[in-house]
Amino acid sequence: MSKYFSRKPGELQAYVPGEQPRNIQSLIKLNTNESPYPPAENVTKAVLKATNKANLYCDPTMLAVRQQLASVYGLTPDHFTLGNGSDELLSFAFLAFCNQATGAAFADITYGFYKVLSRLYATPTDIIPLDEQFCLVPEDYVGLHKTIFIANPNAPTGRALTLAQIEQILVSNPDNVVIIDQAYVDFGAECAIPLVEKYDNLLVINTFSKSRSFAGGRVGFAVAQPSLIADLETIRNSINPYNVNALSQAAACAILENNDYYMQNCAIIAQNREYLTEQLSALGFETLPSKTNFIFTKHASISGEQLYLGLKEKAILVRYFNAPRIRDYCRITIGTKDQMDALINAIKSLI
Amino acid sequence: MSKYFSRKPGELQAYVPGEQPRNIQSLIKLNTNESPYPPAENVTKAVLKATNKANLYCDPTMLAVRQQLASVYGLTPDHFTLGNGSDELLSFAFLAFCNQATGAAFADITYGFYKVLSRLYATPTDIIPLDEQFCLVPEDYVGLHKTIFIANPNAPTGRALTLAQIEQILVSNPDNVVIIDQAYVDFGAECAIPLVEKYDNLLVINTFSKSRSFAGGRVGFAVAQPSLIADLETIRNSINPYNVNALSQAAACAILENNDYYMQNCAIIAQNREYLTEQLSALGFETLPSKTNFIFTKHASISGEQLYLGLKEKAILVRYFNAPRIRDYCRITIGTKDQMDALINAIKSLI
Repeated sequence: MSKYFSRKPGELQAYVPGEQPRNIQSLIKLNTNESPYPPAENVTKAVLKATNKANLYCDPTMLAVRQQLASVYGLTPDHFTLGNGSDELLSFAFLAFCNQATGAAFADITYGFYKVLSRLYATPTDIIPLDEQFCLVPEDYVGLHKTIFIANPNAPTGRALTLAQIEQILVSNPDNVVIIDQAYVDFGAECAIPLVEKYDNLLVINTFSKSRSFAGGRVGFAVAQPSLIADLETIRNSINPYNVNALSQAAACAILENNDYYMQNCAIIAQNREYLTEQLSALGFETLPSKTNFIFTKHASISGEQLYLGLKEKAILVRYFNAPRIRDYCRITIGTKDQMDALINAIKSLI
Repeated sequence: MSKYFSRKPGELQAYVPGEQPRNIQSLIKLNTNESPYPPAENVTKAVLKATNKANLYCDPTMLAVRQQLASVYGLTPDHFTLGNGSDELLSFAFLAFCNQATGAAFADITYGFYKVLSRLYATPTDIIPLDEQFCLVPEDYVGLHKTIFIANPNAPTGRALTLAQIEQILVSNPDNVVIIDQAYVDFGAECAIPLVEKYDNLLVINTFSKSRSFAGGRVGFAVAQPSLIADLETIRNSINPYNVNALSQAAACAILENNDYYMQNCAIIAQNREYLTEQLSALGFETLPSKTNFIFTKHASISGEQLYLGLKEKAILVRYFNAPRIRDYCRITIGTKDQMDALINAIKSLI
């Protein structure tokens, strides 16, 4: 920290991303919930074309992508805006819908960025514990008078709320925005986007990083009624109107044109998740029911850290969180069937 | 504005980018200071490779790009961080070096984003007028006790400070960070990066958008002593650790490997700027001395708005700012010699 830093020591707590080793040829990487499938060929073509004219600025209104999203989700382009990954959209949401009077509420065990952002923007927060089975209890979210951030399905637990439960929270917080951050929704949970027309306090945040094979390209999108989107746009245009670059805009269009390919991959990953869960169960693992492309699992005879370190020695990366309540667990990304078999064999030799 | 927006009406004033028409085939686009030259061929190859594995996250430490920057500028990778365009780095600088106690200071006529960001983050500001020739007066910046933002060369005026003048400001503000935002430096001004080792309060912000033909790719970089960079990193990791995507990181490396190509283009653009300035002078225009890839020019018999609208009718876009002190002027981006000749012919028919 330099003497010029305007923040007090310990005021901020930066996010720590999962390990991103640069040389991954010899690794099985199951630690940051990436898709094992590369983007389809039409993405490469679209990006190539965009690169050749990247001396020019990108479209700051991102209209072509918003039109494609509107077509995929049956809404209008005004229902959408985009972020440089969904993390940026979460940051915009804090700047648009929280302040000293309107704090933020979120679960104790959830995506770590909500806490990081609440500290960055000095937002008063309510941290609401999940129950003992790591379920979010909708009754705990009645009339909070705070902006509510819910990862659904939740990370790192993998558990999902139903749409009826989400509606219960929306209805009981009519004066506040409820953000449903559904990065993992395409792997089996109920999508909240169809609720957007019904609730003017619903903001649904999504990403191309997981189900659409584009973590490296950084495209997130927000869906809400146009008046809520307009607020996010005011923030976006006050920070970085060119926030999604020309290459990623072109890629996002190409991905949406070929949406079925990515949704089919999600179905395969969901199958592999059930396969892995069964195999681990036979080995004595307890795995939370997951609607995502990862599982959260523990074993009575090996700690989360031991499993993480043991697998790392065998060149398999999984994610371990050294945090209260979840130290026994590892979060394991679902990959191809071959990757899952290699993982199962490695685990067999460890327990 | 929705009823959920946490900002007061009029509290924010979003940035208005120059027009970015989507169909530019039939236009001569001289309004947003882009390079007329596309990125070199090795960029396409690098981006292609990155796209094929964009299912994986990018390197959040951006090490390969920082190593290339270190090599180009004769410093270490710890002297650098990157932004999703230099606008994002300016936002990080506000969050890292300004607060209620430490305000911001900048010129009345300068890059519009400083004001936009100071309002977004509710930063107290000193607005310091340029002199009558639109020169920044270093004596006005002595002991301000504020974080100082200087576009050098300035936009939209094009005028530049010398390094000696920058040092004068650095020395007289030892308790505050001085940000030299040198987006246009490669077109003829003195680069402040060699001062970084001497002044721990200097932060130099740069972009690939202008001189390196990559406006659409959104890559900015900050240069400072490692302790100042570490502060920016704390902010970056509290907002978006994957802020520069895999495609842009690959492109940035390829661009820096081929740095001479871009610097040669800058030299050509500087020649075209002198050519255009002389031609306009012969037509009665008064043009401020420019060290950038644009000129700021006015004519006694036609207002800035008339010139802008007249050229737009002839399918040539330039930029006009409807703002005090500069309503007589247009800002015109320097393009190829052919573009400049087409512009001169169009102007001849207007005056």
